[in-house]
Parts: sequence; C-alpha cells; structure tokens
Amino acid sequence: MLNDMVASVFTSRKVEAVRRVRAAGLGAMLITHLPDVHYLCGFTGSNAVLMIFAGSREAVLMTDGRYTRQAKAEAAGTKVEIVDRAALSAACGLLDKSGVKSCGVDAAHTTLAQMEILRKSMPGKKRNIFKQVESLIAAQRELKDADEIAKMRKAAKLGCALYEHILGFMDYGMTELQVAAELEHEARVRGAEGMSFETIVATGERSALPHGHATAAKLPRNGFITLDFGVMLNGYCSDMTRTLYMGKASQFERDAYDAVLASQVAGVELVGPGVSCEDVDEACRSVLRKAGLGKWFTHSTGHAVGLEIHEGPRFSAGVKTKLEPGMIMTVEPGVYLSRRGAKDFGIRIEDMLLVKAKGHEVLTAASPKAWTSI
Amino acid sequence: MLNDMVASVFTSRKVEAVRRVRAAGLGAMLITHLPDVHYLCGFTGSNAVLMIFAGSREAVLMTDGRYTRQAKAEAAGTKVEIVDRAALSAACGLLDKSGVKSCGVDAAHTTLAQMEILRKSMPGKKRNIFKQVESLIAAQRELKDADEIAKMRKAAKLGCALYEHILGFMDYGMTELQVAAELEHEARVRGAEGMSFETIVATGERSALPHGHATAAKLPRNGFITLDFGVMLNGYCSDMTRTLYMGKASQFERDAYDAVLASQVAGVELVGPGVSCEDVDEACRSVLRKAGLGKWFTHSTGHAVGLEIHEGPRFSAGVKTKLEPGMIMTVEPGVYLSRRGAKDFGIRIEDMLLVKAKGHEVLTAASPKAWTSI
Repeated sequence: MLNDMVASVFTSRKVEAVRRVRAAGLGAMLITHLPDVHYLCGFTGSNAVLMIFAGSREAVLMTDGRYTRQAKAEAAGTKVEIVDRAALSAACGLLDKSGVKSCGVDAAHTTLAQMEILRKSMPGKKRNIFKQVESLIAAQRELKDADEIAKMRKAAKLGCALYEHILGFMDYGMTELQVAAELEHEARVRGAEGMSFETIVATGERSALPHGHATAAKLPRNGFITLDFGVMLNGYCSDMTRTLYMGKASQFERDAYDAVLASQVAGVELVGPGVSCEDVDEACRSVLRKAGLGKWFTHSTGHAVGLEIHEGPRFSAGVKTKLEPGMIMTVEPGVYLSRRGAKDFGIRIEDMLLVKAKGHEVLTAASPKAWTSI
Repeated sequence: MLNDMVASVFTSRKVEAVRRVRAAGLGAMLITHLPDVHYLCGFTGSNAVLMIFAGSREAVLMTDGRYTRQAKAEAAGTKVEIVDRAALSAACGLLDKSGVKSCGVDAAHTTLAQMEILRKSMPGKKRNIFKQVESLIAAQRELKDADEIAKMRKAAKLGCALYEHILGFMDYGMTELQVAAELEHEARVRGAEGMSFETIVATGERSALPHGHATAAKLPRNGFITLDFGVMLNGYCSDMTRTLYMGKASQFERDAYDAVLASQVAGVELVGPGVSCEDVDEACRSVLRKAGLGKWFTHSTGHAVGLEIHEGPRFSAGVKTKLEPGMIMTVEPGVYLSRRGAKDFGIRIEDMLLVKAKGHEVLTAASPKAWTSI
C-alpha cells in the first residue's frame, strides 16, 4: 500500500514533466541534475541520468552496478538500466534507438565536457538533436506537491525541536563546535540523514560573519550568538536562523535586534500568492534603511528550499517572479556591523514559509524570535 | 608567522597554476570549480570565481558581499573583488580590460549556461577568446603538496581514532543511525567540519548495498557490519571502510571475508610510483576471481581523495595513468552477494594510501583490518 502511494507520487511528477517536455516542443529531455532525478523517480544514488520522452510515460533511469538493488528499490515505478559505460553514452544509445528528433539538455546542470560526450556518442547526423534549454524540472520543483509539503513540514518541525534542545544546552565556557556537535548529534538521533549545510554557530565578533562556521571559539561573555542550521530529513532540507544574546546587551545592540526583527516580520507578512519576489526583498530592506542599518544588510532576503538548500526563486532586487501557492521560501534579513572603534557584531533571523492559496504558513513558527538572552 | 607560511603555500600553488596556463598556450584561465578556488587561494565561500593570468602572479578572486571579510581573511595573498553582479560577468570585465587574447574555461566544471553568460558578457569580437580545456588544476591537484599531505594525514588519523571509538561503542539493540550519530558527534567534537560524505552503516542483509546509508535497522544478531565514513578536517577528506562481524559467522562468510582482505592487501602491496592504475584494479579483481567471487565485485577499486572525496585518477579497468609520489588514493575492493535461497551480505575493506618516492604509506594503518567479530 505504502509502496503504491509512493510510486504514484513519482508517476504524477513524471506525467507533469512529460507535459513540460511536450510544451517545450521537445521529443525527449535528458535529466542530469541528481536532485531532479531524485524528484522524478526517487533514486538517490550519486551517478544517474534519467531520460524522459514526450511520447511515453516510461522514463528510463541509467546508473551503475553499485546501485543495482538501490535503484530497483527506490525507483520502483521507473525502468532501470544498469550500465557499464558512462550513463551519458548509454543515454545516447537509447535516444538513437528511439527515433526522437530533439532532446533537451539542461543548460544549468550540464557541463561543457558532458555536452562533448553527448555529441560524440551520437552517430553522424543525429549530433544536432541536442537543444540547450532552461531546466524544465527546476520550474516544476518550484511548486511543492502534497508529499513534499508534508516532508518539508516535518523537516522544519525537527529544526524547531533542535533549536529548543540547544537553547537548554548552551552555557558559558562551551565552544561553538560543541554547540554544533550537539545540535547535529541530536538531529541524527532523531532520524535526519545529516545537515543540509555546514552548521553556522557564529558568536561574539564572529557573528559579523554572515557564514561563520562553528569554530573552537568560546561562547561570549557579552555578545550575540547566531545559529543558522538545517536538517536533511527524508531527502528534504530545513533552514532556519535565530540570533540570541549571551550576557547583558547594550541599548544599541538591542535596538539593532529589534530593527532586524521588524524587517523580518515585514517581509514575512507580505508573503502570499501574487506578490513579486523583489517586493518581499524591498519590504525587509526598507525597514533596515529607515533604522539606519541598510548598508549592513549585504545579502539577498531569501530563497526557495526543497530537495536542495538553495533553489529558485530568490527574494532579491530585480526578481519579478510572482509567488504561487506551494512555494516554500526563506525570509532572512540580517545586518553585519563593522564600525571603527566598536566591536563587530551581526544579527540574522530566518523563517521558512509555505505560500498558500491565501497568505502563507510559517513552517518554523514553533521557534520564538522575540529578543532572547541567556 | 603562521599567516606567512599559509600565504606561501597558496603562492607556490598559484605559481604552478600560472606555469600550467602558459604551457597550455593560454593568456588566462577562469577557475569556476570551488575546490580549485579553495586550493589556489584558500577561500572557502560558496560563490566565487578566480582568474589567473599567464603574464602575472596576481590572481583575482571575485565573490559577493556575504564574504567580504571571509575572503580578505582566507585569501590574504590574493586580490579580492567584491562584486554585486554575477561573478562571471565581473570576470569578463576584468578579461576585457586585461587585453588577454585567450582564456581557458574548465570544461568539466563549467555549465552550458555559464558559458552563455561568459559569451554574452564579452563585447563583440572578444566573445571567441574562451577555449574549453581540461581542468589544469585537477591535474595539479593530483599531486598533493607537503601542506596537503600533512592535513590528509591528520584527517586519516582522526578517521582511525573514530573507528577505535565506535568499536567500543557498538552493542546489540542499537540502530545503524545511533552508530552513525555517535561517530559523527565524536568527529565534530574532535574538530572536524563535518563528514566528507553521508556515513554508511550497513548491517546484516543491508551490508549487500554498497552505499547503504545508516537507517533505523538494528545491529544484527549474526551478520556483517560495514562502516564506510570520512571526516572533513581543515578542508580535507578522509575515507576508510572496515567490515566487522557481530555474532557467529559461517565458514562461508569467514572465507568470503578472507578473500576480500587478500584482494585488498594485493592491491595495497602493488601501490607505488610508476604502477598503472588499471594494474592495481586488476590485482584486487584477480584475487576475488580466483576465490569465485569476481562477479560480486561490482565497482571500481579506488579513487584519489583530497579536498574532494572523489578525485582523479581512479583504480579502474582501462585507466593507464601511472601513479606518482604525492598521490593519495583509496584501495577498496568489495563483494555484495545476492544468491537464491541464501541471505544477502556484503564486505568491503578500504585504506587511504600516500604514494611515496618508493612504495607507499598506508595513512589508515592504525585501524586493524584482520577479521574482527564483536
């Protein structure tokens, strides 16, 4: 029963992919990006190519002998071919036999060297059947289906539980590494496959590094602690950031925190169907500008998340994409201050949001983001 | 003092890269592969392009505002440009000004879409200055320098310490996930940035999956446990596999283990300068063939390892590359049996080896590989 349900998830994703291949006027599409392969057929191995044909529901997965069983188990509803030679040249053999006149190649995830293999593996005249196209599957994956939303909710929920756990764990004298190790151990024990990116524990002056990975630095006597982390659970990524304070903050630090929080809330409140991505970015940015902190907000406001930690679209200036129900996005403004004669510090607050038919749902709502000092 | 030493490591790597760019007849080389960027200038951020000029020692690193400080700290000996727009178009601006006549683009790590950006960002006639070339830096990285060898030794040593730790930790009733969680926590507490790949804990019938990630399955009453794991320490990967037995093995299981061990030792013993990669593969394979297990050895025998977990060359049929001092390779034959009417099982044994002026050094020698049952 469970297996049938799982297979039907992949069937409907493949049906939609076939529709997109047809709509793009292609006879077939070669899927080389592993997260796309995972999305369409369930296979998670490290070497795979998936071929989709406009004229058939039957996709073909090509991988190597290390994955014979795994491919059969994970990609139960998809035809599996175990190939000795490079999966790409095997795919060409298949294309050659199929009589297809054009085959899309994902320009964003196919290298120049792979393209050479494809051209060399096709006999004579057929070398020109390959068309560079934008990833049809990336666009499809922007809208999460019910199965994905359920998995992402679980991943986000686990993230929140870990935050609660780590709040009770942190104490003076500990190192950033100890905090990261505890967080990651707890994630693993609770079933995560791993972390969705290298855990950021950036404390004291190191909080001014937007991507400050955990080091042997000790938690500060008086200073911020930025925790930015995510789990990988059932293949899906969570992503959240909280910044808290250890010791006694100055009024300036407190005001800066309140400004970042107001900025983040302004962005979150705007998220809903039909809203353009650049407007969410601007909503966050304008609050920080008014607070005199605009110049310290040096990155974009957020990104989609799913099987990969960074997916499209992004909340960034110039991104006109309109939000649609089923998108899952982060909203994460931050400031990183480096002023002469003063201590550096940084603050970032990040939630994961699901865009709904009306408004949105904050998937990381269980973790408080009001000023927290320990 | 330490900073000077570190800077000199990158200086000598850049000097060698410039030599290779010149030898390839290029005016410049665009480095898009992040591990290559890390290798050449020390920068570890997630968005970067490095430009090397044949006529100058001064490389230029382009990244974005999230990494302003990190780039200045990590890539101290390299000119850093923080760019708003895509790093690739910024690189084109630099190329345009430089007057260089040809610029190499790494075919294995540049996508079709990136190539389009490059072509579109160059004015008119200069669009043809880009030449697709094999990665000059991948070839350079095959030979580890003294700094890398020291780091890889430490990473391998940490791997061995973790194996010893986990041997004392494992017990009946535990799950594969608990074992992986403990191993990874210990790695982190001892300073690793993370694991170099998703930890494999494959027990009982699951040991027949060459890439069986840790699950909620309990350690077996009678069966094999394959542990394949690696740490990431100071940017460098370790990689090792041990297979042990829990409970009481049959004679057939014991014989199969001895055959894999003999195969692995035969491969290890052959490793030394001037030996061709395919010969090491064949040395392992022939032992398993003679033991009647050849058909169950379904993957290649090993790979180079360094900043990335899988680097070139590989120990595989048809690979004529000759080993050279400074290469660091894994030797990891395995068998994965699936026979009608019998329980599935698998065995793999893997060491990391440094090729020396004479023979080799086994970097993971501290972990015993004789038959171990617990």
